[in-house]
Amino acid sequence: MVQAGGIAGEQLRGYIERIERLEEEKKGIAEDIKEIYAGAKAVGFDVKILRKVIAVRKMTKPTGKSKMRF
Amino acid sequence: MVQAGGIAGEQLRGYIERIERLEEEKKGIAEDIKEIYAGAKAVGFDVKILRKVIAVRKMTKPTGKSKMRF
Repeated sequence: MVQAGGIAGEQLRGYIERIERLEEEKKGIAEDIKEIYAGAKAVGFDVKILRKVIAVRKMTKPTGKSKMRF
Repeated sequence: MVQAGGIAGEQLRGYIERIERLEEEKKGIAEDIKEIYAGAKAVGFDVKILRKVIAVRKMTKPTGKSKMRF
């Protein structure tokens, strides 16, 4: 792969653009999440605690053994 | 909002589940990105450089003034 342009260049651009598109999507989702937190805060929930609850649920989920329910 | 169960509880669960769903989506996209990097590596591209290129493009994009092309 020694071409400065041509096939390898196009292939490289393809990879880069696919990654950038997905990074954009990821960013969009992160913004959606932020908005949900903002909405929850607006109705009186404590965002810090909300994050904690989600973190704890995440920790207890993978084993499938926890009976913790929130 | 003082109910331990009932309406506030359900509302809270709603927020949490929406966030968790989006977090899952975000994770899925992050895995897709990882796979693209792996694919690029498999055909001979240098992942470290690829990440660098994407970072530079990201830095030069927002202004809309850069003429840099990769």
